[in-house]
Amino acid sequence: MKEERPLILVTNDDGVYAPGIRALVECVRNKADVLVIAPDKPQSGMGHAITINSTLRIHKIKEEPGYSKYSCSGTPVDCVKVAVSRLLPRKPDLCISGINHGSNSSINVIYSGTMSAAVEGCIEGIPSIGFSLCNFSVDANFDASKKIAERVIEKILQSGLPEGVCLNVNIPNVEYDKLNGIKICRQAKATWVEELDERKDPMGHSYYWLSGVFQSHDNGEDTDEWSLANQWVSVVPVHIDFTAHHTIPYLKKLNF
Amino acid sequence: MKEERPLILVTNDDGVYAPGIRALVECVRNKADVLVIAPDKPQSGMGHAITINSTLRIHKIKEEPGYSKYSCSGTPVDCVKVAVSRLLPRKPDLCISGINHGSNSSINVIYSGTMSAAVEGCIEGIPSIGFSLCNFSVDANFDASKKIAERVIEKILQSGLPEGVCLNVNIPNVEYDKLNGIKICRQAKATWVEELDERKDPMGHSYYWLSGVFQSHDNGEDTDEWSLANQWVSVVPVHIDFTAHHTIPYLKKLNF
Repeated sequence: MKEERPLILVTNDDGVYAPGIRALVECVRNKADVLVIAPDKPQSGMGHAITINSTLRIHKIKEEPGYSKYSCSGTPVDCVKVAVSRLLPRKPDLCISGINHGSNSSINVIYSGTMSAAVEGCIEGIPSIGFSLCNFSVDANFDASKKIAERVIEKILQSGLPEGVCLNVNIPNVEYDKLNGIKICRQAKATWVEELDERKDPMGHSYYWLSGVFQSHDNGEDTDEWSLANQWVSVVPVHIDFTAHHTIPYLKKLNF
Repeated sequence: MKEERPLILVTNDDGVYAPGIRALVECVRNKADVLVIAPDKPQSGMGHAITINSTLRIHKIKEEPGYSKYSCSGTPVDCVKVAVSRLLPRKPDLCISGINHGSNSSINVIYSGTMSAAVEGCIEGIPSIGFSLCNFSVDANFDASKKIAERVIEKILQSGLPEGVCLNVNIPNVEYDKLNGIKICRQAKATWVEELDERKDPMGHSYYWLSGVFQSHDNGEDTDEWSLANQWVSVVPVHIDFTAHHTIPYLKKLNF
């Protein structure tokens, strides 16, 4: 009896033509039916934004047996919502996002469009994984990342994921042979110290570029930051219940 | 000796001219130095988006002793970053966001610009609270919400909040006398079932409006949804460590 091929949804935040998403599609193309839908332009830093005050355009780029590709004018989260509500023939077996050009470790999980797409997949009840390579360059070499992604995808297709949990996978920018392995981690405590770069437009009015310096406040060897600094692939399980359950007893005592 | 007045940062996602932020400012104006910075246009559903691929404009609307007001061309999270990095004389004692026109209970915490601004305040180490009234109308009556906000703000100015935790406060759309009180809750399990409303532009090409139907899957009486349905104000502590710690032992056993 022929086994049914898995159905995999692929998206990202760097845009449908980014090399990283091409690499991710190559990881699964031969073993699954694949639907790609990704933003028609870069959407880094879009977090969990959705498009509710304006309209969406959806453009079919390619369709052949077992493979179709779309661009969407919206955010990464919009892409997942559009795929689930309109494009996919059934709930997919997996939603994968990336491979992002640049790290999404520690607090970056919250700003990242790549991870927000995976989180949205998780909200929709789909086992979901975001992949990021610690190299921002458009010329980044995704060879090692592809091998890692294949290993993680294979495992999750077999085993699934706990309900309400997706994975944030970050891959150090080194060759595959230099990697120590894959480590399950917690999100390191870190922040960005913002810098507003003030400039003048031709009319003499100020405008600003938002930038910043990343600061980790966490030396824990069980963190994603430690893993990445020590040539381990970091895998952080991310959940969609944001309740700080451990603080409920304290807050109840405050008697609002 | 004169006691120093607290310094409070106020923002929202409905825009600097929304009635809800005016109501929130009225709650604190007399007892604190207040800096308001909010988006120059509605930014609902922007989640934790930040502006990194384009520039920001910042416009001073008002400045008088103990009170200043700015608009910003960016997202709610941008507003907090701009305030902290450039406008505030010191780290504020409180960051409050809202009062949102519409509920941000359960999974909406992740899409909400209002709550994302509070979460960003929390990341910056500021005690932070998002307030939302369960009424989307621009004519919503904020009288009860203001009384609730004053109570919660007073308490948190006195007691602070645990590290890495902010509050998601949602207020039922009833008169103050009809409220049963304030309940500390967990986030209910819920999702949106998306609907893509397809239309044709004058050239005959399709475009889409993203909308959906809210579905709660959670009957727990300890949830925010239950509280709101039963005339209780819901207060959910929200944390910025997204790690699903309880799943780490299981994932380690998978041997990636």
